[in-house]
Amino acid sequence: MGDADCLFCGIVERRIPAEIVHEDPAVVAFKDIHPQAPTHLLFVPRTHLSGPGQLTGPQASVAQDLLGAATRTAERFGLDRSGYRLVLNQGRDGGQTVGHLHVHLLGGRPLGWPPG
Amino acid sequence: MGDADCLFCGIVERRIPAEIVHEDPAVVAFKDIHPQAPTHLLFVPRTHLSGPGQLTGPQASVAQDLLGAATRTAERFGLDRSGYRLVLNQGRDGGQTVGHLHVHLLGGRPLGWPPG
Repeated sequence: MGDADCLFCGIVERRIPAEIVHEDPAVVAFKDIHPQAPTHLLFVPRTHLSGPGQLTGPQASVAQDLLGAATRTAERFGLDRSGYRLVLNQGRDGGQTVGHLHVHLLGGRPLGWPPG
Repeated sequence: MGDADCLFCGIVERRIPAEIVHEDPAVVAFKDIHPQAPTHLLFVPRTHLSGPGQLTGPQASVAQDLLGAATRTAERFGLDRSGYRLVLNQGRDGGQTVGHLHVHLLGGRPLGWPPG
């Protein structure tokens, strides 16, 4: 399933170390190594998808796996009262830096507007 | 289904005007009235949910309705090659300003980092 050259496949398969905070049958979540907020986590599907543009057709349900895991983890981190932001980047203008679909969860400080 | 005091329920029910760009059985999308990028659209479920924190349990599939509609609309707007960003805000720190779940789609310029 995994792509040997993909950083996030390496984390999912435990070939590459990361500070993992959540695992379920569909999703792995870990701390961003360049955090932009007191809590900054990444949620990735175990299956290699290149980005949000692939969240259609047979893979559409991955969206619910990712956002469900992110909102439940936000609660576990105590962010449900203070609030948080979820961000998905697609391609160059989106600022996507790893070609494996991921959801950023940021919280613990007020997030400004515009979102980039 | 709709909340009489909710701005986005008003748009879904056509009581409040908006520049609608997409409709399907689950989702309505329209232009943000304070755009932060050349393309800035909002995707809302027809059902009133307060925010991303409600994307668990029986309502979890709304995540796939919203992100599927957003990625397909991004393609229709020609953003799939240049890229785009999807943003969901929950609560105060997330900068959520309308209490009806919505996904921001921003594209047409490079989005900076951090995302707020």
